[in-house]
Amino acid sequence: LTPTEQRQRLRAHFAGTRCASPASVYDPLSARVAASVGYEIGMLAGSVAAHTTLAAPDLIVLTLTELAAQIRRIQRAAELSLIVDADHGYGNALNVMRCVEELEHAGVSCLSIEDTALPIRYAQPEGRDELIGSAEMSGKLRAALAARRDPALMIAARTSGLKVEGLEATLARVREYAATGVDCVFVVGVEQLEQVRAVHEATRLPVIVGSAPAAITHAECAAAGARILLQGHQPVAAAVRALREVYTHLYGGGAPADLKSSIASAQEMDALTGGADYRERIARFLR
Amino acid sequence: LTPTEQRQRLRAHFAGTRCASPASVYDPLSARVAASVGYEIGMLAGSVAAHTTLAAPDLIVLTLTELAAQIRRIQRAAELSLIVDADHGYGNALNVMRCVEELEHAGVSCLSIEDTALPIRYAQPEGRDELIGSAEMSGKLRAALAARRDPALMIAARTSGLKVEGLEATLARVREYAATGVDCVFVVGVEQLEQVRAVHEATRLPVIVGSAPAAITHAECAAAGARILLQGHQPVAAAVRALREVYTHLYGGGAPADLKSSIASAQEMDALTGGADYRERIARFLR
Amino acid sequence: LTPTEQRQRLRAHFAGTRCASPASVYDPLSARVAASVGYEIGMLAGSVAAHTTLAAPDLIVLTLTELAAQIRRIQRAAELSLIVDADHGYGNALNVMRCVEELEHAGVSCLSIEDTALPIRYAQPEGRDELIGSAEMSGKLRAALAARRDPALMIAARTSGLKVEGLEATLARVREYAATGVDCVFVVGVEQLEQVRAVHEATRLPVIVGSAPAAITHAECAAAGARILLQGHQPVAAAVRALREVYTHLYGGGAPADLKSSIASAQEMDALTGGADYRERIARFLR
Amino acid sequence: LTPTEQRQRLRAHFAGTRCASPASVYDPLSARVAASVGYEIGMLAGSVAAHTTLAAPDLIVLTLTELAAQIRRIQRAAELSLIVDADHGYGNALNVMRCVEELEHAGVSCLSIEDTALPIRYAQPEGRDELIGSAEMSGKLRAALAARRDPALMIAARTSGLKVEGLEATLARVREYAATGVDCVFVVGVEQLEQVRAVHEATRLPVIVGSAPAAITHAECAAAGARILLQGHQPVAAAVRALREVYTHLYGGGAPADLKSSIASAQEMDALTGGADYRERIARFLR
Repeated sequence: LTPTEQRQRLRAHFAGTRCASPASVYDPLSARVAASVGYEIGMLAGSVAAHTTLAAPDLIVLTLTELAAQIRRIQRAAELSLIVDADHGYGNALNVMRCVEELEHAGVSCLSIEDTALPIRYAQPEGRDELIGSAEMSGKLRAALAARRDPALMIAARTSGLKVEGLEATLARVREYAATGVDCVFVVGVEQLEQVRAVHEATRLPVIVGSAPAAITHAECAAAGARILLQGHQPVAAAVRALREVYTHLYGGGAPADLKSSIASAQEMDALTGGADYRERIARFLR
Repeated sequence: LTPTEQRQRLRAHFAGTRCASPASVYDPLSARVAASVGYEIGMLAGSVAAHTTLAAPDLIVLTLTELAAQIRRIQRAAELSLIVDADHGYGNALNVMRCVEELEHAGVSCLSIEDTALPIRYAQPEGRDELIGSAEMSGKLRAALAARRDPALMIAARTSGLKVEGLEATLARVREYAATGVDCVFVVGVEQLEQVRAVHEATRLPVIVGSAPAAITHAECAAAGARILLQGHQPVAAAVRALREVYTHLYGGGAPADLKSSIASAQEMDALTGGADYRERIARFLR
Repeated sequence: LTPTEQRQRLRAHFAGTRCASPASVYDPLSARVAASVGYEIGMLAGSVAAHTTLAAPDLIVLTLTELAAQIRRIQRAAELSLIVDADHGYGNALNVMRCVEELEHAGVSCLSIEDTALPIRYAQPEGRDELIGSAEMSGKLRAALAARRDPALMIAARTSGLKVEGLEATLARVREYAATGVDCVFVVGVEQLEQVRAVHEATRLPVIVGSAPAAITHAECAAAGARILLQGHQPVAAAVRALREVYTHLYGGGAPADLKSSIASAQEMDALTGGADYRERIARFLR
Repeated sequence: LTPTEQRQRLRAHFAGTRCASPASVYDPLSARVAASVGYEIGMLAGSVAAHTTLAAPDLIVLTLTELAAQIRRIQRAAELSLIVDADHGYGNALNVMRCVEELEHAGVSCLSIEDTALPIRYAQPEGRDELIGSAEMSGKLRAALAARRDPALMIAARTSGLKVEGLEATLARVREYAATGVDCVFVVGVEQLEQVRAVHEATRLPVIVGSAPAAITHAECAAAGARILLQGHQPVAAAVRALREVYTHLYGGGAPADLKSSIASAQEMDALTGGADYRERIARFLR
């Protein structure tokens, strides 16, 4: 699939009636494992990108260039339609335009720009998100849309409004955001299904739900207008736990052979890294 | 520790009497987990670098720039003295010089250049390694040494001679390599402890053993002149297996909560990604 | 223009009857100046890429990643259909495939792979080019064609045969190369127009002439089957000379004002760097 | 010279009594020409970095990663002690820390962080700079100093205060900035020598003057406490003008030979790109 086709596949999903949870991916191998399991949609969260490329917390110390490079590595490795959390777009509306340019070139299918004031402001109270004004945010969204070269690329307006300002103010915001022409709305901090439905009805746009109480089902989300429901970022945390077990075992003098049942086999690693494709290339072009 | 201090720490290890197995690392998080477990020495293998940055097999399709960038990301994240398998040095002796320049700048403590003809040659028989001549290899090693700016950086001469030409020819090779002034010899394909001892005695240099039969102990390796014994690359394979389990569970509709016991906790992720350091920075510089 | 449209424009030129000389460009500003003068076709030579990104001679010390990054910077800045001399494809046929993947992603319209043995071999006689065998070269060309994702991307087979083996052997080579399905043939070391015609007639493919005696005209080249005639790399040399004059003047204590007539005005720099576009973006999205 | 030695050389200059104008450089070749003329100090301005790496205006659309990469290319090519205008440090105080980390690694000798609010704010009046508060700026400077690993690296506090708030307010600012422990103060918008002297006397720190009326001499600046006086960015503008002349000539059908007297000779290009060094490396390591 070309990048455009990956985007069209994601658009088809958004135009449908199901609510899916994408694979939380972060590097070429995680993306390839996810694709091999059957996933067609992947998600690179800003927090996960910071953790895995810098071993840093989710505080916007990653640069746009680093994010784009990581996305490109992921897209080379697996044909996932990738949704990327592009935080605040890395600055003002001009930076948003570069962000769209670079992430589109890197191959993303959908990117979100959010209304949280980022990076955290000087003297901002601890643990309290602040939002930029809706006019400024709308300018950033219009800039994002203007910077898009492939019309199939999806732009999502992401809001932290529910947590910071409550439902009514959030509905006013998303109405403004929807008026810019964005393709979907991404809400975080959902506590009740009704919030999702209200956002959908206020905008007539499909919704990405950043997180929701575990009791809410995919079917309920779908009926409320959501097409994507994120479920957290367990994969990187599972990899970390596995790494810790292996390093602890070996550092303590444990035998490598003892690990056999807890690691991917050589055959699996070969399959994941395209061994057969490369052997065929060697046979065709190097002999 | 500065890069120079990391290199001096590794040199001190090589000057001692123990044989250690480094942590096989490949990205910032793996390096940080390894360091948190106690490791002071890390190893980035060429195969693992290709797997994790490109999802490609060990066929030299990674570029020097990509390798250097991945090393830099690893070195930023953890204070490991890093040994890097730099394959053939990415071309001829001039390319070896650039390789040393770039990897030194990225922060490696020891890098190896090998005598295998790489990338595989046109019409080379399947599965059969070939070696470059020892004069050519010596030129590459002399070039590597001349390109070094920090005298603490270690240069290892790596040979596939045991598998391809047998012990006698390998001893002739490593004597020539040692005469260039390299800091250690890296042998792969070891089948008997005596081979390690013979290489050590022929060169009076410490030895890195790329792999050895499981029955050979670290103490025996140390007595034979080895200071580093590699044990394979289980960590990335463990991460892959953990990823597959998580993706399979979630793709099949399993609940995220079921995964709790098999993933790192939020506290562990926070600790690994320097949460406390960043909170302190915020308190000092942003308030 | 999208990258595909830039490639189609170049294909239309090759399908025509004229022989053009592209602008020798090397960075975003040079490309933008060239485009502003009227050029639609640009050329990034391997030598010029090495000079400008590394201040290094034409000895293949630039990496594929560095070349691709420079191309991307050039392509972002100006809508030139760019022909790139990709040297030997950065290794064996597998590396050629990566080279095509990376340069296609960076936006090139045409890339050439050459049959010179590169980088220079151990013990190769000074100043004497050597060629790889034609079977090996054909494998590389077939690999390049197989790696292409956009069918509009042009692949050129470049040969140093005229200088190394003479016309007859070169004709045998280019016939083999043409049989792989490449889009054009790139010859260097042309001494007589008849050589161009012979290559064209042997292959029925359009020809890129790397250099030719000054007496040969574009019209003659066109009639002989050439569609591109390179004329050297004066632009970077002109920039160097201008830089030397300015630095010498200022280092010697000369007044900046004295330079006014020999530098681009502030208005020209503003126009070149898209000042008006950015002011319009600010007015639309930041107010 | 190592990066530390380059920094110590710059510190020695600042500790002396002269006021120098650095070479405005922007890529490997410009840096090498400048060094060949005799310059020991170079300057990479933010505006020039944006122009040359992106063909963009000075509006902070360049990323930190792109800036660091360009600096690294420059530093590889020439042993200049490089002063870099790092704009606002690419975000908040946490971003400043990454900025220092990345630019130190890239090899800069001195970097400045400025108090202008950047990138331009939403609804900011056209052409009117705004400043961040001095407490916020001081936090960024303390963060910069804390992030420095090589104590020889110089950190400059840059202020746009003279243009925005006038002299008295600027003196209050620079006193606060000096109290953080920065190594020098960088002022732009100087109109009178007395302003330089006042800044110097208020802080007891050496001053970098971003620009000044042409009538003010280096000797006067030195006596007033300045050690660096910028004179504009003619070199890139001279290169642009030379490029335009060459492209215009060739695009119009002019003969390449006509350009001979206005371009660097092949010998000069060979000398600039280290031809002799490489030939010696070939002779030593490849034969």
